[in-house]
Amino acid sequence: MMEMWFSDVHTPNVKLSIRVDEQLFSANSELQRLDVLSSREFGKILVVDGDLALTEKDEFIYHEMISHVPMAVHPNVKQILVIGGGDGGVVRELAKYEDVEQIDVVEADPLLVEVCRRYFPQMACSLNDRRVNIYHEDGLKFIRSRSDAYDLIIIDSPNPFGAAEGLFTKEFYGNCFNALHEDGIMINQHESPFYDEEAFWCLRMHKRIVESFPVSRVYQAHIPSYPSGHWLFGFASKKYHPVDDLDGVRWKLLGIHTRYYLPRLHAGVFALPAYVEEMLKDVE
Amino acid sequence: MMEMWFSDVHTPNVKLSIRVDEQLFSANSELQRLDVLSSREFGKILVVDGDLALTEKDEFIYHEMISHVPMAVHPNVKQILVIGGGDGGVVRELAKYEDVEQIDVVEADPLLVEVCRRYFPQMACSLNDRRVNIYHEDGLKFIRSRSDAYDLIIIDSPNPFGAAEGLFTKEFYGNCFNALHEDGIMINQHESPFYDEEAFWCLRMHKRIVESFPVSRVYQAHIPSYPSGHWLFGFASKKYHPVDDLDGVRWKLLGIHTRYYLPRLHAGVFALPAYVEEMLKDVE
Repeated sequence: MMEMWFSDVHTPNVKLSIRVDEQLFSANSELQRLDVLSSREFGKILVVDGDLALTEKDEFIYHEMISHVPMAVHPNVKQILVIGGGDGGVVRELAKYEDVEQIDVVEADPLLVEVCRRYFPQMACSLNDRRVNIYHEDGLKFIRSRSDAYDLIIIDSPNPFGAAEGLFTKEFYGNCFNALHEDGIMINQHESPFYDEEAFWCLRMHKRIVESFPVSRVYQAHIPSYPSGHWLFGFASKKYHPVDDLDGVRWKLLGIHTRYYLPRLHAGVFALPAYVEEMLKDVE
Repeated sequence: MMEMWFSDVHTPNVKLSIRVDEQLFSANSELQRLDVLSSREFGKILVVDGDLALTEKDEFIYHEMISHVPMAVHPNVKQILVIGGGDGGVVRELAKYEDVEQIDVVEADPLLVEVCRRYFPQMACSLNDRRVNIYHEDGLKFIRSRSDAYDLIIIDSPNPFGAAEGLFTKEFYGNCFNALHEDGIMINQHESPFYDEEAFWCLRMHKRIVESFPVSRVYQAHIPSYPSGHWLFGFASKKYHPVDDLDGVRWKLLGIHTRYYLPRLHAGVFALPAYVEEMLKDVE
């Protein structure tokens, strides 16, 4: 039997290896290398520049947790901006809300969108929703020209090392602040607290967001395919408190089907382990 | 440079590999093969029959979560039984409680205790506590002869496949019930909900514990070195409710230092993701 393994390098000293049945796609776009692998354990896997970006088996956890946590807090989201997110996972979750009027997706790489439409149709399905506008532009430039335009901004970025580094600067978070309405919320993927390199970026992000927004809290999810499995998200807000302003009854009445998120676990995801809380306090 | 990697096989199709500096110890006891490896990323690693048992870097998460959750609920724990636990990690946490009078540890393998005393002194440090009695016996036999003897039983077992399988039977849980006082609590490591094989055992255990105890709930922690990183524990109880009977103020007044557990996150660890809750409901 042919043995083929994809290894996702978590640190120079740790890697998660997944047995691969077939390499379904591989190409270089103008920005990055994209691969799609098929595996028995995780289903199809999207690999960007050699790093595991998402898997069919557990992408629902990341996409639900980055989307529904703010949607269950903000009572009236109409305009949303997603930076990154060309895979369609965040849009699929947001499109479940009938009251949402506009979802702008700023995805620099058109090939990423095309690949996800072809290989991950269950994830990319809502990219054709009439409320969705896809801009193949640089997120940094896009955000500079927007002011008082969105209720919610979701930064669905890759890791901060390399091309996406500009999405992790104080200037960028300040521009997001300006692009939000007066009660707006910004959510970002926030790396993991466990391994040193990710913890470094996690703290750097947290420091900059704390300096940019009056409310800034971090929450967590169990995402098995990501380094350490302990993944964080940032909740930055001009007005709403991430836990006190949860309206679980309103959210449940929407009848949205989820497999991970429920209002019942909302408060718990903001209750971080002592060692993570201490780390974050150091930069607050 | 020498390249040496230890791979922990999570499923036939997934493995976590950790770079190893040195193999510090390797021997076969009468029961199992024991190895101690040193690594830059996880510190020392204890490997039992080829499976990662614990690492210096994240053992505190497992040991705190299996110990302090019941100790913050039960108001008056004096007698404790630990089945397995020869590594000393659970005992270290329990020995922090001055009111505890007796900690019986039933560890079948004397060599495991010896190896942990030598290579993991920060973990095994409290095995010499005057309240600790170590029995090198079979846990199954030991429990049969005990009745109305303990306030808390902690089943700190390895995986259910192989030698330890007897620790996962309905008869065993019934014997634990009998060995507990009328307000006793039983905690067990409960595998992970994510990969099929572990999820199978997780459900089997849950079904049997639900049949044996009036109160049975499952809680979770982020343990990066364990398969999927999403690890579960079982909380089975004759009287106390795992969340409603938490007394966080009493616990905080004890002044116990922890790096993961805090009463602040107690309710949250019982708030399981929707897909885990649904799985467990199927067998309740």
